[in-house]
Amino acid sequence: MSTGRVEAFSDGVIAVAITLLVLNLRVPITNGSLLAALADEWPAFVAFFISFLGIGIVWVNHHAFFHSLARVDRTMLFANLGFLMAVVLIPFTTSLFAEYVGRTGSQASVAAALFNGAQLLMGVGFQSSRVWVERHPGLLRPDAALPTRMQRFRVRAGMLVYIACIPIAFVSPIAVLVLDGLVGVYYIVDHMAPSAK
Amino acid sequence: MSTGRVEAFSDGVIAVAITLLVLNLRVPITNGSLLAALADEWPAFVAFFISFLGIGIVWVNHHAFFHSLARVDRTMLFANLGFLMAVVLIPFTTSLFAEYVGRTGSQASVAAALFNGAQLLMGVGFQSSRVWVERHPGLLRPDAALPTRMQRFRVRAGMLVYIACIPIAFVSPIAVLVLDGLVGVYYIVDHMAPSAK
Amino acid sequence: MSTGRVEAFSDGVIAVAITLLVLNLRVPITNGSLLAALADEWPAFVAFFISFLGIGIVWVNHHAFFHSLARVDRTMLFANLGFLMAVVLIPFTTSLFAEYVGRTGSQASVAAALFNGAQLLMGVGFQSSRVWVERHPGLLRPDAALPTRMQRFRVRAGMLVYIACIPIAFVSPIAVLVLDGLVGVYYIVDHMAPSAK
Amino acid sequence: MSTGRVEAFSDGVIAVAITLLVLNLRVPITNGSLLAALADEWPAFVAFFISFLGIGIVWVNHHAFFHSLARVDRTMLFANLGFLMAVVLIPFTTSLFAEYVGRTGSQASVAAALFNGAQLLMGVGFQSSRVWVERHPGLLRPDAALPTRMQRFRVRAGMLVYIACIPIAFVSPIAVLVLDGLVGVYYIVDHMAPSAK
Repeated sequence: MSTGRVEAFSDGVIAVAITLLVLNLRVPITNGSLLAALADEWPAFVAFFISFLGIGIVWVNHHAFFHSLARVDRTMLFANLGFLMAVVLIPFTTSLFAEYVGRTGSQASVAAALFNGAQLLMGVGFQSSRVWVERHPGLLRPDAALPTRMQRFRVRAGMLVYIACIPIAFVSPIAVLVLDGLVGVYYIVDHMAPSAK
Repeated sequence: MSTGRVEAFSDGVIAVAITLLVLNLRVPITNGSLLAALADEWPAFVAFFISFLGIGIVWVNHHAFFHSLARVDRTMLFANLGFLMAVVLIPFTTSLFAEYVGRTGSQASVAAALFNGAQLLMGVGFQSSRVWVERHPGLLRPDAALPTRMQRFRVRAGMLVYIACIPIAFVSPIAVLVLDGLVGVYYIVDHMAPSAK
Repeated sequence: MSTGRVEAFSDGVIAVAITLLVLNLRVPITNGSLLAALADEWPAFVAFFISFLGIGIVWVNHHAFFHSLARVDRTMLFANLGFLMAVVLIPFTTSLFAEYVGRTGSQASVAAALFNGAQLLMGVGFQSSRVWVERHPGLLRPDAALPTRMQRFRVRAGMLVYIACIPIAFVSPIAVLVLDGLVGVYYIVDHMAPSAK
Repeated sequence: MSTGRVEAFSDGVIAVAITLLVLNLRVPITNGSLLAALADEWPAFVAFFISFLGIGIVWVNHHAFFHSLARVDRTMLFANLGFLMAVVLIPFTTSLFAEYVGRTGSQASVAAALFNGAQLLMGVGFQSSRVWVERHPGLLRPDAALPTRMQRFRVRAGMLVYIACIPIAFVSPIAVLVLDGLVGVYYIVDHMAPSAK
């Protein structure tokens, strides 16, 4: 099976999910200062930004990954569907996070853990496709380079941060926001490096 | 008429519909346990999962089916539109099901019957395209293999489960959820078999 | 400029707009019969069906029209944007119609006139591209056939019904629904004829 | 990296964002004149129109710009993501503007400044890709013409109007609406000129 239509469908789902994030930004109803009312909604804006970054980066990686494939088998079609389900959940966990991060007690922690959990699920879904291809190198294009040991280490480092964030959510929900954002920035810098040479 | 743009449009509609399913997951408003409040919304999550699976599988089949076509005639364009209308209805029936499955009396049964009905309609819409092509084999690519008798039996078996679910909805709405989910899993296992060899 | 990306973008907008129609179908909140509550919402379902048909048919025509083009100039890009704006308005006018068609007085008439007006605008936007191409035949593919006199008559007949529906809306809003639906069916039958031979 | 999939993804995001603008048009709830109630919502319609025009024009330019590229590097992928984030914010700032433009005091000014700010951000995001390509002409297709000095002047003139609109928002929010609309019309006329010759 050719990769073209899988990419087109994945791009469609990712494009819709990343755009639906804007529905989490609600127009505040206020008779006072509009700027102050918007500032009160900072968690929604920060969560929007980090989720946009997360989905955007995963799209760049998906793009690069599928570019290295000659064809796709049915297992990968369904692994990709699982990955897309995680992507589709992001607008929901982003909204949950924005709503509850300012609360006290366990509410903010649960929201942060689920927000981070969806990002982790997205990563796991994507990695499972990668692992499958490493075991079935016949799916690769003849000229495709397998990821180097260093590249694989970097991807796993990012995943480990997501895993570490689950317990961290119960200590400091805001720390999860910062760490998830840093993983995003780390991937961007890492990815931009080759082209900056 | 070439199949490319029909596929692109269908992918677009399917991608948007599958992503809109997330709008059915609502952030609960609670001052108590957030986890408990989310757990109370289990029907929304289960319905999301089954509808995502249903649309995702139909997309995989649509992909494979159009791959076997050389061209599309106007009848198929409109049959495909009917299929897409059923796909677009899924977020609505999913939301209806999630809202009413926990109710008593006939409400849960009606919601389950309609939820299952949209899945059936999606299947019927897709099958009508297939039947049309079987009667007009000139639309197929010269190298395309017609589905085997076994494959056609399997597709019909899935459809029969959907039809059987309509009366079952009035006995046990939850059973519809389980059966529709099982049809999804059955199609996945069935489809993954060849590539696992 | 090649037609490929204009088609892709148009398909995207049309696919999103046609799918957003489902957001007009709201889950009724009732403690009584769910079927009765859904039946009360019949205008939403009928309007959904007619708008889906209208956008779907215009997509089929758009598909056929762009297939005949060799390239697109900037005027057509902007004419196409105007057409797409009309398409994007359809979910709004559909919702307006569903909300007000059951009311008495001028409310239902205004809603019906605007519902029909968006369909007319979509047709005008599409026809303006066609007229531009007729005057700039260099944009056509060498092997493209210009529409016959009969085909042009049929398109204009449909447009005339839309225009006639504006005053009719102030006599009978339901008649607009029936007539707009009939135009859709007429175009389908008309389009399916050649392939049925 | 080839430009095809970046264009497809960008088209997807732009198509979804431009279509989501329709969600800002709300069906008024009234027992009086429906026309009067709709007329009361004029800011929503005008903001819809200007934002649709703004996103539509930026899409035309994006189309023309990517057409001139031979390939895309990772820096451009991320610059493009930044551009798309601005596009995705437009439905939010449009909704904000429509809600607050009729208010007195600083509320309308803040809303107008943010509405205009998103348009500016969209322009800056797009220009940053352009500037990167001017400094890395190896990304261009061999037959691609660099923008003329006059063309670059025109683009910057539009950007200057957006920048000037930030202080203007605090004098007259309506003036921002008019100026942003005029920039749109200016770009359309400018772009249509060559094809009208």
